[in-house]
Amino acid sequence: MSGAGHTSNQGQAPAGAWHPANAPDCVGWTSAKTVRIATAARPFRTELGGSVGPVDVEYETYGELSAARDNVVLIAHALSGDAHVAGWDADAKRTGRLWRMKKPGWWDAVVGPGKAIDTRKYFVVCANVLGGCCGATGPSSPNPFTGKPYSLQFPMVTVGDWVKQQAALLDELGIERLHAVVGGSLGGQQAIEWAMSRPDRVDRCIVLAATPRLSTQGLAFNAIGRRSIINDPDFKNGEYYGSAPPSSGLAAARMLAHITYLSEAGMREKFGRRAKDDVCPGCGFGIEFEVESYLDRQGRSFVERFDANSYLYITRAMDYYDAAEKWGGGSLEEAASRVSSRVMAVSFDSDWLYPPEGMKEFAQALARNGKPVTYINVPSRYGHDAFLVETETVSRLLRDFLSAENGGASIWGVRPVRRETAPAPQPQPSPAAVAREDDPPAFTSNGFLRWQDKVIIDEIPEGASVLDLGCGDGKLLSAISASKGARGQGVEIDIRAALDCVGRNAPVFHGDIENGLAGFPDDSFDYVVLEETLQTLRRPDEALRQMLRIGRRGIVSFPNFANYRVVHDLMTSGRMPVGGALPYQWHETPNIHLFTLNDFRDWAARSNVRIVKGYALVADGVVRKLSPSDNMYAEEILVVVEKTGPAPEYLI
Amino acid sequence: MSGAGHTSNQGQAPAGAWHPANAPDCVGWTSAKTVRIATAARPFRTELGGSVGPVDVEYETYGELSAARDNVVLIAHALSGDAHVAGWDADAKRTGRLWRMKKPGWWDAVVGPGKAIDTRKYFVVCANVLGGCCGATGPSSPNPFTGKPYSLQFPMVTVGDWVKQQAALLDELGIERLHAVVGGSLGGQQAIEWAMSRPDRVDRCIVLAATPRLSTQGLAFNAIGRRSIINDPDFKNGEYYGSAPPSSGLAAARMLAHITYLSEAGMREKFGRRAKDDVCPGCGFGIEFEVESYLDRQGRSFVERFDANSYLYITRAMDYYDAAEKWGGGSLEEAASRVSSRVMAVSFDSDWLYPPEGMKEFAQALARNGKPVTYINVPSRYGHDAFLVETETVSRLLRDFLSAENGGASIWGVRPVRRETAPAPQPQPSPAAVAREDDPPAFTSNGFLRWQDKVIIDEIPEGASVLDLGCGDGKLLSAISASKGARGQGVEIDIRAALDCVGRNAPVFHGDIENGLAGFPDDSFDYVVLEETLQTLRRPDEALRQMLRIGRRGIVSFPNFANYRVVHDLMTSGRMPVGGALPYQWHETPNIHLFTLNDFRDWAARSNVRIVKGYALVADGVVRKLSPSDNMYAEEILVVVEKTGPAPEYLI
Repeated sequence: MSGAGHTSNQGQAPAGAWHPANAPDCVGWTSAKTVRIATAARPFRTELGGSVGPVDVEYETYGELSAARDNVVLIAHALSGDAHVAGWDADAKRTGRLWRMKKPGWWDAVVGPGKAIDTRKYFVVCANVLGGCCGATGPSSPNPFTGKPYSLQFPMVTVGDWVKQQAALLDELGIERLHAVVGGSLGGQQAIEWAMSRPDRVDRCIVLAATPRLSTQGLAFNAIGRRSIINDPDFKNGEYYGSAPPSSGLAAARMLAHITYLSEAGMREKFGRRAKDDVCPGCGFGIEFEVESYLDRQGRSFVERFDANSYLYITRAMDYYDAAEKWGGGSLEEAASRVSSRVMAVSFDSDWLYPPEGMKEFAQALARNGKPVTYINVPSRYGHDAFLVETETVSRLLRDFLSAENGGASIWGVRPVRRETAPAPQPQPSPAAVAREDDPPAFTSNGFLRWQDKVIIDEIPEGASVLDLGCGDGKLLSAISASKGARGQGVEIDIRAALDCVGRNAPVFHGDIENGLAGFPDDSFDYVVLEETLQTLRRPDEALRQMLRIGRRGIVSFPNFANYRVVHDLMTSGRMPVGGALPYQWHETPNIHLFTLNDFRDWAARSNVRIVKGYALVADGVVRKLSPSDNMYAEEILVVVEKTGPAPEYLI
Repeated sequence: MSGAGHTSNQGQAPAGAWHPANAPDCVGWTSAKTVRIATAARPFRTELGGSVGPVDVEYETYGELSAARDNVVLIAHALSGDAHVAGWDADAKRTGRLWRMKKPGWWDAVVGPGKAIDTRKYFVVCANVLGGCCGATGPSSPNPFTGKPYSLQFPMVTVGDWVKQQAALLDELGIERLHAVVGGSLGGQQAIEWAMSRPDRVDRCIVLAATPRLSTQGLAFNAIGRRSIINDPDFKNGEYYGSAPPSSGLAAARMLAHITYLSEAGMREKFGRRAKDDVCPGCGFGIEFEVESYLDRQGRSFVERFDANSYLYITRAMDYYDAAEKWGGGSLEEAASRVSSRVMAVSFDSDWLYPPEGMKEFAQALARNGKPVTYINVPSRYGHDAFLVETETVSRLLRDFLSAENGGASIWGVRPVRRETAPAPQPQPSPAAVAREDDPPAFTSNGFLRWQDKVIIDEIPEGASVLDLGCGDGKLLSAISASKGARGQGVEIDIRAALDCVGRNAPVFHGDIENGLAGFPDDSFDYVVLEETLQTLRRPDEALRQMLRIGRRGIVSFPNFANYRVVHDLMTSGRMPVGGALPYQWHETPNIHLFTLNDFRDWAARSNVRIVKGYALVADGVVRKLSPSDNMYAEEILVVVEKTGPAPEYLI
């Protein structure tokens, strides 16, 4: 079944010479296969009402399909990509795709034996898209009714058509479910479409550098790119096959698109305002700056391998795709409700073609449906291209997310994440009951979890859902999951910590607690945790409000500034106390909103919040149930809170 | 001399009908004039070595030239602008500029009687640029050697050529000095060039939405715009005069440029992804989305009034301009050393064609030369177009900055700002001298200045230079200037406060203390003030370091957290103290790094900083010299500090 075949040198290099195709982490020499998914008699019906047949689809596969047929990773390619994802094309010379003799497939850095998408584990499939020009039926294919190329008689195609086409290919291959669908850019939109249109067939959906729809600016750039093709006198309303193609128009379109693939910072670093060496500056309107030369090269090389009509069709498909419109009547939240796969959404902070904001909206739409979500905004200077260039980070994310366990009790939830199936929260204890509750959990310092971690783990009932705000590297979430089978979701602003979460299989929303919580719906978690985080926030009151909007109960821990040692230190030294729960100097402390247990009690009373129970660290390693005197005695405090009616209650 | 003339209706509207030209704040009906600034015998020599003659320049003027000829405001127009800045063109029909019958000049909102550039006060001049097509000699003008239009035989032009051309026009008009030169976008680059190339002739330089050079991305967009013109088969190597011009290429170039004039947020708000009403969606590659239709209209209307060859020349001049390269051998700091005018640099935060970062670099380059600078980054959703659209803010800035007094003792400095002419700082007092120094200044509450303000004003010697970090609305700077004739410079992050500073004639750098101080050179101010600001910063230690890098002395005031009332409150209430110098609740306080006098003393000792003197607010309205016991007694503290050698000293 594998197209890679790891066959020996097929004439691409002199016999005996080493070739990168022979590297142990390369899939080797590849040969594409072709399958017919529709015929003239049974044509392919497009979403917009057209039909086309026959439809032949060229595809490549790498690795071996497992006996259970459960190790399939479908890769969806982007605008100018193709099915040749990895390895070296054994047929490049024969098929006239000479540019493939110079380099391996477009994602060779990521796909191969031992690489992030490990072809020793996964059976990788990628197919050329309908309407393209790289090996699937498209405008340059012969129209069976005329015998001439379709040109603009080819029906409009959509992202939905490509998913349908890929599904048909998988049917041919006898593949029912996907371990994962993965795509970047326009390929990322296909991954989104897979998750929404075929939730039954997708276990994991990985979207890179894409958004659920193209921005207005993106529409505008596409329009201008198409116009430069259509304005080219060689375009001839698309009927240019057999004569000179509209190369200058297509080149200009590609040049323009290339600007949108890079960030200004990246361009500045790469080219600056340097003039080419071999030009006379000030001589006219030719190529003088390096950036002009670079774009010119990009345009020239593109026209050698791409068909202008396909460029029109594919960019229009980019324009049209709108997941919210298609699946939610305009509501992305509604559309996201269809998704049942795990989703990892990865944006790149300098990408302005598919900006992080759009990906974040997608992640939030999933969160609004109570679905776990992993969203990472990777810092990069490479703009949209980053999904192809930031190989190290992307590989790490792919490897971790692909290998996460699927079934069983995991941090992703024991069962499909639906509110009605989540375990009911424990009944509210009466004030009297609190006093009788079991002793505080024994605190064992294991050098791994803070004392609060243990308390929190004991506090969370079996199977309850937990949102951890400021979740750090995900250790607590992992521990809760391991011991309680709870559904966990983290929010973390630090990228390194967020990447660690992905490695721990903890769903993490990489973003700011103070701006990123709007996506989580009211009462969508049993517990929301703010562990040693509140005092580091700019607007702690807003975080507390969000905590109790999202969660049925909140768990908050913080250093207590009224602790007698703190006050004593302040009085005797006349300096801001340093030590214990407050280990930082005044000018470098992340603790920017200090407060006391009494302050917190006041806030709770004002805010109709009941303190259900609490624990205090009263000395090194000594944790006890919170007592009324702990405004003075506690160094650190952990409280469990919940909303009450209008009349505030003091339970402690 | 005025071209406006406020003449009556000249046939543009039915006799007796009201016309906007008759509005009292409109300059009325305008007629351009033309002056010949070069002849075939004495041609205009261009910077890049070409020559052209004759050169005729069409220009407009509004208002009256004062007898002293000291009220001239020169406006420099942008790429697609022209000399018709304000009012209604009386000659539109006669000259065939029919589009001018529908609307007034391009900056009519800002220029007129009583408007920001008030034609009752100022004599306003604007000239069309050489190489353009709106009334100055350019590629469509006849080449005297051939009798045919120059086309691409026209020499390359530069921003420097335009300034030379404008200077020649001013010579013709008998104008020696400019009250101000004002320009936005490419016009802003002309304003920069004026300030650097003719510092002797410019009193004020106002730069809007421009940078000292175009970004790499800007170069790339220009290259693609020109390519679409050159690729147009009607272009014929520029020899299209007398036949159909390359309209589709020029329209495409304009469409592309228009994307760069808007922000994505602005585009989304205006057009979203809405489809036009009258199209069938999914039908092909025509205009389907509103944004496509908008750009199409922009392209169509532009080709009616603009010449494609001029577009090539002017965009290349945009590409070439690099103030740092031209005037500083690559160093913007060196180039900025030439500037002697006051500068107001205004960027717009969503402008990505001339991004704020570039304008900030320009402002910092001025600051690095010890020059006062006003830099404002206006929040706007309108992208680059904001300089034309944010009329209210731009008008306020223009009005305030233009009307600022020029000579005499002002906040801008009594004399040209050069370090060697600034008064030497007072001799360092010996420890004993400190104790004998005059009594603390009497504190008079005037409802206007804080107690520290009075102390600071008394502390600053006559004529000393002062940098006020977190200067707020500029009241303290104004007061220092009024009483001490000191050179003042503020830094303020809040836009409303920064605008107030401009209104008070206080140079203000609108930006972040924690990231924006790199532009100020070592030892460039006598005093740097951090008044009640340190405790609100994320990184107070870094601000202190910057303070003593930039200033010879620092003045710092802060609330003292060791004050006995504060500690007493904390002890008795068990809550964070609220009141006095610390009036905020724990969760909403801007004071995020609390500290005590002792903490500050420790920091000073560690940092080789000497506390020269200090004052304490010990009770409501009672200020006294700082005494050793004030770690306990002072509510608020003000200290004057300076760097010492390696051995720290305690003076108090």
